[in-house]
Amino acid sequence: MRLILNSPLDMHLHLRDGDMLKNVAKFSAKDFAGALIMPNLLPPITDIKSLLAYKKRIFEAVREENFTPHMTLFFKSDYTADFLEKAKPYIAAIKLYPNGVTTNSEGGIEQIDTKRLSPVFEAMSELDIPLCVHGETNGFVMDREREFCAIYEQLAASFPKLTIIMEHITTKECVKLLEKHENLHATITLHHLLITLDDVMGGLLNPHLFCKPIAKRYEDKEALLEAALNAHKKVMFGSDSAPHLVSKKECCGCAAGIFSAPIALSALAELFEKHGKLTNLQTFVSDNARDIYKLIPINKPIVLEKKEWIVPAKFDDVVPMFASQTLKWKVKSRLN
Amino acid sequence: MRLILNSPLDMHLHLRDGDMLKNVAKFSAKDFAGALIMPNLLPPITDIKSLLAYKKRIFEAVREENFTPHMTLFFKSDYTADFLEKAKPYIAAIKLYPNGVTTNSEGGIEQIDTKRLSPVFEAMSELDIPLCVHGETNGFVMDREREFCAIYEQLAASFPKLTIIMEHITTKECVKLLEKHENLHATITLHHLLITLDDVMGGLLNPHLFCKPIAKRYEDKEALLEAALNAHKKVMFGSDSAPHLVSKKECCGCAAGIFSAPIALSALAELFEKHGKLTNLQTFVSDNARDIYKLIPINKPIVLEKKEWIVPAKFDDVVPMFASQTLKWKVKSRLN
Repeated sequence: MRLILNSPLDMHLHLRDGDMLKNVAKFSAKDFAGALIMPNLLPPITDIKSLLAYKKRIFEAVREENFTPHMTLFFKSDYTADFLEKAKPYIAAIKLYPNGVTTNSEGGIEQIDTKRLSPVFEAMSELDIPLCVHGETNGFVMDREREFCAIYEQLAASFPKLTIIMEHITTKECVKLLEKHENLHATITLHHLLITLDDVMGGLLNPHLFCKPIAKRYEDKEALLEAALNAHKKVMFGSDSAPHLVSKKECCGCAAGIFSAPIALSALAELFEKHGKLTNLQTFVSDNARDIYKLIPINKPIVLEKKEWIVPAKFDDVVPMFASQTLKWKVKSRLN
Repeated sequence: MRLILNSPLDMHLHLRDGDMLKNVAKFSAKDFAGALIMPNLLPPITDIKSLLAYKKRIFEAVREENFTPHMTLFFKSDYTADFLEKAKPYIAAIKLYPNGVTTNSEGGIEQIDTKRLSPVFEAMSELDIPLCVHGETNGFVMDREREFCAIYEQLAASFPKLTIIMEHITTKECVKLLEKHENLHATITLHHLLITLDDVMGGLLNPHLFCKPIAKRYEDKEALLEAALNAHKKVMFGSDSAPHLVSKKECCGCAAGIFSAPIALSALAELFEKHGKLTNLQTFVSDNARDIYKLIPINKPIVLEKKEWIVPAKFDDVVPMFASQTLKWKVKSRLN
């Protein structure tokens, strides 16, 4: 049995830099036609020169693979309309991080004051540059996203022409917001479709499933599944694949992030098939993103075969999701 | 400045066995007059012979220290009145674990059916043997204790003469139950007075603060603090100090448990002083336990000095709570 996905897209991806970039980029480049590349490097990508240099390093890392990195800038409150107009041809979106809420989000926005920030949002609306948002407050870890909903609503209502993407949503409240505001969209990760906080710390503590936003309750996972499996027009796949060396995961201060890129399509196919929704996977992993981002991906059919394979325990020094476990679908021509 | 605590008691302590017992027992034995020793070894302590043999190993481990291990049996549904009568002189309590909810709780009770288990509870009531309970269901990790409240209520109402201790409570709901049922009491750990889930996983993930029941919300911590700081007559200190080798903490499947024994009194003194409640510490760490358990501890004054010290990074291969951090009170004659 085979499944062909036309030009799958990963609309939320961390490729990092340096050696890590060289080690992980190939996995996304092999399975996807393109990906939205997160800008939270150290320092973050806030100018065109750095962005283009990073893009070049990504191309070097993916080598001969046919893969489009859709670049993003790290949102700054002082971006001018003039700068944004110049940046527009090079970027697919701008990513807003509240200060300090996740890996390398220092230098993010202290307070999301729609009035103070309106010049940037107005210019982005005019130029049709989507705004991607890491939507968490600095509150209690289980409440951070829920609390952020008020800010999503304020943004959506204040800038109705701005395309806003609620990144890696994890709560039923965010799913509901999709119906309420036309300009709100969302990415959903693989892991938030599969795990709850019980999987992270209900038994033994599994640092490899520790991510931000943290996985929530069963009813939250159900709401995300409902939207993804039915290929809700306003949701897209974004892996939020975020590699960390095993030494940064199995340690005292474990970094947040799940490395899912190498197994994302396989696990998605298994999940959608299990729920009898395999025919909706194309829409979730590609078509919706084309509509929301108004992008035309390169033509890149990806063939998956129904064939069990065991996920390696590590890729270099990074432990992937489903490490050493068996998956039922395999991307054809995967070399491992 | 000095503080003298008369015969402090730790009413919930894991001393483990073998090398670990030899390494950790001395810390409790030095600072406390006695402790209630948890029976969840592998296999659990369910007969008098094993219990006395374990007690002997504890005495060997504490050597010349003047310290009383108050022994407990692991609750089994088939304990007879005859067996309990024979056991009574050797035990301070019986500890009930629901099956599979924490470290070495396999072989615990599948379903706490008060009717089916009533012969044991009735016999314990008659013999005045306290029942200590690990009160968690198998539900969602944040709800497990809250869900268990119904079982606590049923136990308390069905066996009004049975002294029931809700172990290591973590929620405001359990604090409220203390007022509702005369025969419900509770132990509170040091860590649940200090941390919430935010400290475990709000920033980087800290496996050394991962414990069962997991730390909950701010309002839960506040309710616990209110009871402990005011030396509520129905609450006692129980550290739930639970050592694991660093290799079992900083790893892929991290074991639940915080090793607080070596710093418990120091950190409690700092906490109670910070809240202007230092005069209540004696009641919390000793007097209430004497009343609830009707025990007379050995006479062992413990002197603490207001003197900063840095907690070692490790004791052998076990990382303690507050590792490498500074505490303001020091138990006198501590050698490190």
